[in-house]
Amino acid sequence: MADQKKMVEEITSMDVDFAKWYTDVVKKAELASYSGVRGCMVIRPYGTALWENIRDTLDAEFKRLGHENVMMPMFIPESLLQKEKDHVEGFAPEVAWVTHGGEEKLAERLCVRPTSETLFCDHYAQIIHSYRDLPKLYNQWCSVVRWEKTTRPFLRTMEFFWQEGHTMHETAQEALEETERMLNVYANFAEKCLAIPVIKGVKTDKEKFAGAEATYTIEALMHDGKALQSGTSHYFGDGFAKAFDIQFTGRDNKPQYPYQTSWGMSSRIIGAIIMTHGDDNGLVLPPAVAPTQVIIVPIAMHKEGVLEKAEELRERLSKFCRVKADTSDNSAGWKFAEYEMKGVPLRLEIGPKDIEKNQCVIVRRDNREKIFVSLDELETRIPELLQAVHDGLYEKALKRREEMTYTAKNLDEMKEIADNKPGFIKAMWCGDLACEEKLKEVVGVTSRCIPFEQEKISDVCVCCGKPADKMLYWGKAY
Amino acid sequence: MADQKKMVEEITSMDVDFAKWYTDVVKKAELASYSGVRGCMVIRPYGTALWENIRDTLDAEFKRLGHENVMMPMFIPESLLQKEKDHVEGFAPEVAWVTHGGEEKLAERLCVRPTSETLFCDHYAQIIHSYRDLPKLYNQWCSVVRWEKTTRPFLRTMEFFWQEGHTMHETAQEALEETERMLNVYANFAEKCLAIPVIKGVKTDKEKFAGAEATYTIEALMHDGKALQSGTSHYFGDGFAKAFDIQFTGRDNKPQYPYQTSWGMSSRIIGAIIMTHGDDNGLVLPPAVAPTQVIIVPIAMHKEGVLEKAEELRERLSKFCRVKADTSDNSAGWKFAEYEMKGVPLRLEIGPKDIEKNQCVIVRRDNREKIFVSLDELETRIPELLQAVHDGLYEKALKRREEMTYTAKNLDEMKEIADNKPGFIKAMWCGDLACEEKLKEVVGVTSRCIPFEQEKISDVCVCCGKPADKMLYWGKAY
Repeated sequence: MADQKKMVEEITSMDVDFAKWYTDVVKKAELASYSGVRGCMVIRPYGTALWENIRDTLDAEFKRLGHENVMMPMFIPESLLQKEKDHVEGFAPEVAWVTHGGEEKLAERLCVRPTSETLFCDHYAQIIHSYRDLPKLYNQWCSVVRWEKTTRPFLRTMEFFWQEGHTMHETAQEALEETERMLNVYANFAEKCLAIPVIKGVKTDKEKFAGAEATYTIEALMHDGKALQSGTSHYFGDGFAKAFDIQFTGRDNKPQYPYQTSWGMSSRIIGAIIMTHGDDNGLVLPPAVAPTQVIIVPIAMHKEGVLEKAEELRERLSKFCRVKADTSDNSAGWKFAEYEMKGVPLRLEIGPKDIEKNQCVIVRRDNREKIFVSLDELETRIPELLQAVHDGLYEKALKRREEMTYTAKNLDEMKEIADNKPGFIKAMWCGDLACEEKLKEVVGVTSRCIPFEQEKISDVCVCCGKPADKMLYWGKAY
Repeated sequence: MADQKKMVEEITSMDVDFAKWYTDVVKKAELASYSGVRGCMVIRPYGTALWENIRDTLDAEFKRLGHENVMMPMFIPESLLQKEKDHVEGFAPEVAWVTHGGEEKLAERLCVRPTSETLFCDHYAQIIHSYRDLPKLYNQWCSVVRWEKTTRPFLRTMEFFWQEGHTMHETAQEALEETERMLNVYANFAEKCLAIPVIKGVKTDKEKFAGAEATYTIEALMHDGKALQSGTSHYFGDGFAKAFDIQFTGRDNKPQYPYQTSWGMSSRIIGAIIMTHGDDNGLVLPPAVAPTQVIIVPIAMHKEGVLEKAEELRERLSKFCRVKADTSDNSAGWKFAEYEMKGVPLRLEIGPKDIEKNQCVIVRRDNREKIFVSLDELETRIPELLQAVHDGLYEKALKRREEMTYTAKNLDEMKEIADNKPGFIKAMWCGDLACEEKLKEVVGVTSRCIPFEQEKISDVCVCCGKPADKMLYWGKAY
C-alpha cells in the first residue's frame, strides 16, 4: 500500500500539540489526506475499510430492528428545504447551492443535501396513506455537505459520510420509543464495538437539532478533555408531518398526522476513535472495527521455514479474524513501528526460535504487553486477547473520563475548573436560556447534555443561583 | 412495506407499450419512485436491497482481485476538471455547478462529479513516487451526476449510483491486462449472477469514453430489441498521468508516467435486469441478487398448525437462502400476484393438506412450473431450483438474443432489418467515421462494439463497400 521504502516518521507528541498530533495520526496512519477540494478529504483505503466495518456493524443492527435502507436524491430544491421553518433557518446558511446544469441556469436552485428530512417527508407524503402503512423505518447511507468555514479531517469537513434514519409512527409514544431505542443502539455500539464510554442524555433547546422537539445524544470525552457529540437521535413530533401534509387514515377512520424521528452517526466517529484511544505512537484501533486485527511479522524471515510458517499462520487465522502477514523486505523494526502507527490491535511475531518451540510472541497494541502463546492455542487465545484489548481500551478511557469529570456549584468554581482542568463539568441548571448563554460567554463551555442518569450536585443553578433541579454535563467541545 | 389493503393492479402489457410496461414495473414492484427533484429517483427499499446485493457481490470480487475502496470528494473544482482536454470537453456540458456556499459566491465553481478520473489523478500525484507504489488498485462506490434532458428510472437519471475503479500501473501491458480482467469480471457477473448474456468487445473511437485510448464494453440485448451498455472498462494509456503530472521513479531509476485504467458498472444494470427478464406479470429477478429468493405463502392459514409450519419453514430456510413468509391477512391470490410482480424466484405454498402429506408446492417465477417437494428435501431441492431458475432465465435470454440478431451485407439490407426487426445487426465496417455517422443517420443505428469474437460476414463495409475486416454489432440503444 504505502511506499515500502518510506521511513516511519515520528509524530508530534500529544502533550506538545494535540491538534498537530491528531492531524499527524490521520496522515501517517493513512486514514485520509487532503484533497484539491477545500474542506473535503480523500478517505484512503485504510480509513475506508474502517468506515466499512463501522457501516456494516451498524447496518446489521438497524436491519435486525426492522429498518430498511433507501437511496434518496442528493439534491433538495430550495422550495422543499423551506417547507419547515426552523429547519431551513438552521441549514440554509450552510448549504452548497447548485445554480447551473451544464450551460443552463436553473429556474430553481438546488442545495446539496445537508440532511434529508425534507426529502424523506416529500416521499412519505406519497406512500403513507393508512395506519397499515406504519411504521416506516427507513435509513440511508450517504454523504452530506455543510459549508463549514474551518475544517479538520473527520471532525468537521464540508462533505462527510453518515447514515440518517428517518422513521414515521402511528403514535407519539412509538416515535419516542424509537428515538430512545436508536440512541441505545449508538451507545451500545460506541461502548461494545468502539470501546468508547459515552454519556446518554438530552440536548437543551438551544443545542437541539433544527426542527426537532427533542434531541437525544451520546457524548464522549476526548484525550484532551474536549467533548465530542458521537451520535444523535431526534424526536420530531408531528411538526414536519404537518409542514409536508403527511396524513394517514387512523384506526378510527379519521385523518391523522404521523410522528417522526431521525437519527444519525457520521464519519466523525472516526475522529472520536482516534482521540479516545490514540497515543504518541499513533492510532490504536478497537478490535471490533479494526481493518486488520492481527498483523503477522516474520522474524529473521530469510531463515528456512519462517516465511512458510508466517503464511501458514495467516491462512489459519483468517478463518476467525482479520489478519495480514507483512512479508515485505522492510526490517522487522520498521514493521513494528508501522503497525503501531496503524493501530493494529495485535502483532504476532514468528521467528526460527519460536518455530522450534512451537510458539509465537503476541504483542498488544494498547499496553505493549508481550505474551508467549503456544501455536496449538491460537484459536482460543487470539479471540481472548482481542477481547482483552477491547476491555483494556474501554477501561482506560472510562478511567480517564472519570478523572477528568468535575463538579461545580457556582460560577467562580466553574470558571476555575474550565480555565485549568480540561474535561466535563457537572453542574445544576435552572433551565433558563440566559444562563446557558452566560456560561458560554463567561466560562467558555456549552451544555453537552442533560444526562438520563441524574445526580444532585446542589439545589441551585450554577449560574444564577435560582432553584434548579436539572444536572447537566458542560464542557468545551469539538 | 406496502399498504396491505392495496389491490395488485394490472400493468401495461409489453406488447402494447414497452416503455409504459417498464415504468409500471419499476413503480408497482416498488423499486423506485419519482422524487420532487427533476430527473432524480427515490430508490425504495426493494430497489435498494437489490442494489446492495449487486454491490456486495461485485465488491467481494474486486477485493479478491486486490482492489481497495476509497471515498473521494463529490466536488471537482473547475480548474481540475479542465486538466485533461478530451475529458473536460466530454463532460463539461452535462455537469451540475455549485456556485454558492451559504450566502457566499465561490471564487471557483465546483462541479458535482460526473465521474472521478480527475480526483483520482490529483490524489495519485500525491501518493505515487516509486515503482514500489504500483500498482494502485482503487475503487469507490458513490453516486455521480450528469445533467440529462430526458430521464427514465435506472436507465438515465441525473444522479445515478455506481462503482468506479481507477487503477495505476507500471507498464502499459499491465494496465491493458487490468482493463480486460475487469471487463471479464463484469461479463461473468452479468452472466453468472444476473443471467444476462452479454457481448464483449471494444467501442469504436466515436463511442469511447472521453479521454480514454480504448473502451471495452459488455452489451446486452433487451426484450424490445434495444441494446444496453451494461459495464465498461477503459484503458487510458498515460494521457491523464501526463496531464496531472503523475510520475514515479522506475526500476531503472528514471522518472516515468504510469498507465491507467478505469471501469464502472452502475444502477443502470437494474434497468437491464428488468428489461431482460421481466414479463407481463412484472419483475423477474435472478436468484443470485434477488432480495427475497423464496416467499412462503401459507394456504388456509387460519387452519390449525399452518402458520406455525410456515414460520418453522422460514426459520429453516433462512439458514441457506433469503426467505420471507407472508402471514398478513391478504388473500393467497393477492399474495401470489404481489410476489410475481416483485419477481421473487420461488414461491413456496404450504397448506393443511400439504402438511398432512409432509410436502409443499414450489412454483417457479420464470416459467410458473409447479413442483411438489417433500419437506425432507428442502435443503437440497431449493438450491437446485434456484439454480434452475437462473439457468432458465439465462437460456431464455440467450435464445431471444440469438433470434433477434441479424446479419447485413449492404446498406439496403441493413435498413430493411433496422426498420422491421428490432435487435442486433452484425455487419462489416471499414473503420471510417463517416460510415459510422452515415449508418446512424440513414439506418438509425449506432455501433455497439467490435466484438472480441469476430466473424466474417463479408469482405466489404456494409456502408461504403470498401474493403473491411472488422465485424461490428450495431443497433438501437438505451
